[in-house]
Amino acid sequence: MEELQRIVTRAWETGRAAAASGRVANYIPELGKADPSSVAVAVANLDGSGASAGDVETRFTLQSVSKVASLACVMATGLHDPFERVGVEPSGDAFHSIVRLEEETGRPRNPLINAGAIAVSELLEGPNPSEKIETLRGFLQVATRGADVDGSFALDEAIYHSERDTGYRNRALASYMKHHDVVADPFVAVDTYFRQCSLLADVRSLARFGLFLASGGVDPDSGLRILSAEATRKILALMTTCGLYDEVGRFALQVGIPAKSGVSGAILAIVPGRCAMACFGPALGPKGNSVAGMAMMELLARELELSIFSAGEAGRQLETSGQSA
Amino acid sequence: MEELQRIVTRAWETGRAAAASGRVANYIPELGKADPSSVAVAVANLDGSGASAGDVETRFTLQSVSKVASLACVMATGLHDPFERVGVEPSGDAFHSIVRLEEETGRPRNPLINAGAIAVSELLEGPNPSEKIETLRGFLQVATRGADVDGSFALDEAIYHSERDTGYRNRALASYMKHHDVVADPFVAVDTYFRQCSLLADVRSLARFGLFLASGGVDPDSGLRILSAEATRKILALMTTCGLYDEVGRFALQVGIPAKSGVSGAILAIVPGRCAMACFGPALGPKGNSVAGMAMMELLARELELSIFSAGEAGRQLETSGQSA
Amino acid sequence: MEELQRIVTRAWETGRAAAASGRVANYIPELGKADPSSVAVAVANLDGSGASAGDVETRFTLQSVSKVASLACVMATGLHDPFERVGVEPSGDAFHSIVRLEEETGRPRNPLINAGAIAVSELLEGPNPSEKIETLRGFLQVATRGADVDGSFALDEAIYHSERDTGYRNRALASYMKHHDVVADPFVAVDTYFRQCSLLADVRSLARFGLFLASGGVDPDSGLRILSAEATRKILALMTTCGLYDEVGRFALQVGIPAKSGVSGAILAIVPGRCAMACFGPALGPKGNSVAGMAMMELLARELELSIFSAGEAGRQLETSGQSA
Amino acid sequence: MEELQRIVTRAWETGRAAAASGRVANYIPELGKADPSSVAVAVANLDGSGASAGDVETRFTLQSVSKVASLACVMATGLHDPFERVGVEPSGDAFHSIVRLEEETGRPRNPLINAGAIAVSELLEGPNPSEKIETLRGFLQVATRGADVDGSFALDEAIYHSERDTGYRNRALASYMKHHDVVADPFVAVDTYFRQCSLLADVRSLARFGLFLASGGVDPDSGLRILSAEATRKILALMTTCGLYDEVGRFALQVGIPAKSGVSGAILAIVPGRCAMACFGPALGPKGNSVAGMAMMELLARELELSIFSAGEAGRQLETSGQSA
Repeated sequence: MEELQRIVTRAWETGRAAAASGRVANYIPELGKADPSSVAVAVANLDGSGASAGDVETRFTLQSVSKVASLACVMATGLHDPFERVGVEPSGDAFHSIVRLEEETGRPRNPLINAGAIAVSELLEGPNPSEKIETLRGFLQVATRGADVDGSFALDEAIYHSERDTGYRNRALASYMKHHDVVADPFVAVDTYFRQCSLLADVRSLARFGLFLASGGVDPDSGLRILSAEATRKILALMTTCGLYDEVGRFALQVGIPAKSGVSGAILAIVPGRCAMACFGPALGPKGNSVAGMAMMELLARELELSIFSAGEAGRQLETSGQSA
Repeated sequence: MEELQRIVTRAWETGRAAAASGRVANYIPELGKADPSSVAVAVANLDGSGASAGDVETRFTLQSVSKVASLACVMATGLHDPFERVGVEPSGDAFHSIVRLEEETGRPRNPLINAGAIAVSELLEGPNPSEKIETLRGFLQVATRGADVDGSFALDEAIYHSERDTGYRNRALASYMKHHDVVADPFVAVDTYFRQCSLLADVRSLARFGLFLASGGVDPDSGLRILSAEATRKILALMTTCGLYDEVGRFALQVGIPAKSGVSGAILAIVPGRCAMACFGPALGPKGNSVAGMAMMELLARELELSIFSAGEAGRQLETSGQSA
Repeated sequence: MEELQRIVTRAWETGRAAAASGRVANYIPELGKADPSSVAVAVANLDGSGASAGDVETRFTLQSVSKVASLACVMATGLHDPFERVGVEPSGDAFHSIVRLEEETGRPRNPLINAGAIAVSELLEGPNPSEKIETLRGFLQVATRGADVDGSFALDEAIYHSERDTGYRNRALASYMKHHDVVADPFVAVDTYFRQCSLLADVRSLARFGLFLASGGVDPDSGLRILSAEATRKILALMTTCGLYDEVGRFALQVGIPAKSGVSGAILAIVPGRCAMACFGPALGPKGNSVAGMAMMELLARELELSIFSAGEAGRQLETSGQSA
Repeated sequence: MEELQRIVTRAWETGRAAAASGRVANYIPELGKADPSSVAVAVANLDGSGASAGDVETRFTLQSVSKVASLACVMATGLHDPFERVGVEPSGDAFHSIVRLEEETGRPRNPLINAGAIAVSELLEGPNPSEKIETLRGFLQVATRGADVDGSFALDEAIYHSERDTGYRNRALASYMKHHDVVADPFVAVDTYFRQCSLLADVRSLARFGLFLASGGVDPDSGLRILSAEATRKILALMTTCGLYDEVGRFALQVGIPAKSGVSGAILAIVPGRCAMACFGPALGPKGNSVAGMAMMELLARELELSIFSAGEAGRQLETSGQSA
């Protein structure tokens, strides 16, 4: 336990140093107010242990990290199959690109690009955007057993209004999907999406949220199943192939953990069978990912040997002796 | 052990049934001669055990599966860094697309699309294509300890000539990269690529080849290191995000194992810390992947619980009791 | 005069025969109600003479032909330079494509594709869409000296509502341009565009409208200048390079006259220094142009020697004698 | 006549001043040796009169201007229909782009982009590239009645070798077309293209060449027909819609004359029924067109009223009096 805390603290120090080279997102004015030097990290193990460091009280909006939450919520509810609307392939394009949407008759490549997330958000239960978001917040509360600081994953009204006032690219995506009958009501879909992006968390509540994904769908405290093991594997597969914008490949090579990032500077990462981790650092690199977050994830993956591509103990033993030994 | 053989045999039966819905690739005449009903599968465990079923004596050309071998060979040699020439991101396009190459000034997105593999192949040691291929065959022989049927991973001359006579799209890619100084000699690069695609293997020798990737870089028989653990993780990450053409996402969701497919109907899959598997079935689906291979991989992953996104034993225990129990 | 009428009648017969191979546009339900066998044509000469044939009383919505009218209206008013918002180059893409808009930061390639026309429509004078359309209708009335059947170029409410209810692709274009600050209010821009597309004309009033473009900007009846000669030349140049969707090149080769087509089956064509022509035939070819209209324009251009690429009398004299003779 | 010379001299002065803002093309080393301040212009009227100014003795390679010559030569010979291989639509892309070639299964959009010209060049009569070029030079000599300075339109060996050593982008286009069976032998096609680009002319011989295009296909000296009137109109239509790379629209609006430019700094322009003009000025603007040439063409078109979009005398008379007067 102390070992974990030492490594997490070291990760935070590395992240804090890295943050200087990034820039806070300013495509919506409210996001631009974040403190670029703010850095936080939390690790939550399936066995209930954990550690955190840095500005752990700082709350941030989920932004694109919310795409994982709404996808899981829709899959958990089971009333709609999100994959009737969206594909499962990486797009190779920027997260907000409309090009491939045109080529592929309005069907988003996957649920973790903006178009796909907008299409999935509309499937959240509820007659209107605000009720749909209550469904999502309820899911977040259940999945974390109320672990958020005030138990609520509240909506940041200023960010929401800022998104709503400026989000014309997302409106273009929604209108385009409506043209192809992929969404039913583009205004409902996009407003729901703006709201889910504006939900607040801190690194500890976000890491806590990830635990059911690390466990194969079961809440580790209660043993209750939140999502099927198969759905959980699908979400982790999508995070691995589509979760980090144009750096998904680089992240897979350098870190090797299913993860999802957001322009607020949040990253949620899941190590199946072991732990969930959350990072925060609003200073972003050129591809829109938190520079502190990327540096911290890389250190944690290396020091804790978390890569899903690692041969682990089996590999080490072979090198010592050979299988024939 | 008998259990493994039973599952592998069941996989083969499933694959054989699935093969009927596919079509043999005919973009080069020689490939079109393959028997569409031919199906084979082999599993090689790191502990030396294994099982196989079907037409295990049938030899096939590696085609795009060779991209993994040449990348590993170049990384093992260490004289050139392939990632100075090629990126690591999924492309979202067809494997032979030239579009993104134009957008991105001749730099291939990753080493597993054709353009990237052509650029990497030129880095194989040797003054000309035939010597470069000897370097690659030497690497295959070392990595498998001569496990190929005649120890040689021989070149299929008819396939090679067929590739060479018809491969104008690959020549276009090579010329385009030369325009951007990504390759030194497009004729050498593309001829080397045609040759590596024409190397022969069977499912057992191909699965045996994959073992050093499953072990984190160590030959499991001798305990000798063939590739660094870091390089091995990178290759598995690339296979996961870029290894199955336009079905990389679907494969990640349904199978969840790093893999690379080829139009000959071969698939090589690696489960880190555990095993390597090879499938063969020349009847392809609409995306260019073996339909038998896809079906067999899915069955093996499910029955043997091989998905890298699975929580495994940890998840099951939690469900039974909860962590607090 | 009788010769012109004979040729125009022959054109109409050719157009009527050609119409059988086309299909009425049905992307908005109301348009689909048009009679596919309806065909009309009118020629208006600068000297006041003219001829017409077919269903000359049939009224049709201007659809994309309105793009020429709104561009001319904005240029005539002179309060805004439309080319600050839109380019002047052919796009090579479908008229409603959003791809190039993304590549080129929201700036439409030219004012005759949908995105460009939407951006230009917003520049029509008036505080809201309905007033903006009154400005455009006023311009149409002035330019034709009230030649429309009821003097009004009235708005077809059913078509307008149908456009409005279904035009999500155009809304996507408008939202995307708003994202890049190319339009001020995407809802105003796109609603104005829907309205201008829904204005009604018949072939004679439409041909009459084109006369000021054929004369270099002057109303041929009154001698009053409606538009500068330079602006007129610009509009004709744009019609020639961008006026017929994906058949602009074929039309230039086979007809050789500046023209603009619409999905209602209308085509307006201008022969500088000579005449304006209008065709109608709602049965469209695969590229969205009236098959009757294309056939009629080709016959008229050939029989009346209207191509702007023709050497005319000068060429014929040279062949007879040589310049040296 | 003196008036024409005065205007041509003024054009040259304007061009000389404009040249300072351009840059000589350096994508092949030999082209980079041109004197950026060199400027020349020539006008040849169908009646045998004409004028010229500047460095009229300076010879330059035709580069892309040769695309018009080889297209005319293939059409004149009549053995092959170039439009079985290439389309007639503007591409909207850079002249050397391969993107649309991929989308459209190897069929070039038009004969004036590189891919299209390569496909057309292969159709020149002759068993090999050097004989094909002799066919083209013979056509140039016939069409100009030996008007080139030494009667030969000789090949610049240094430029040709420079093209050949560096033209990998064009080789990529040729290979890609071979993949789609659009060309028979990509090496023959591209070598022929490199050679035709390297043919030499001066502004007077180039303007003289254009006269048969201005006359509707007849040599103005002899009265002999070189090309059908219909083929001539098609070539002028293609020059108008596809002749100036990414400035075809701007040129149509500002100049309004069918023209073709080349990266050597040459521009050939044709006014049907009236004259042919040639400009030279190797300092290029950002789109690859001669800045002096563009400035000179604009001045000549305005001063001599050459725009094919102009209403001419008819328009002026109407303004004075009105048709009703």
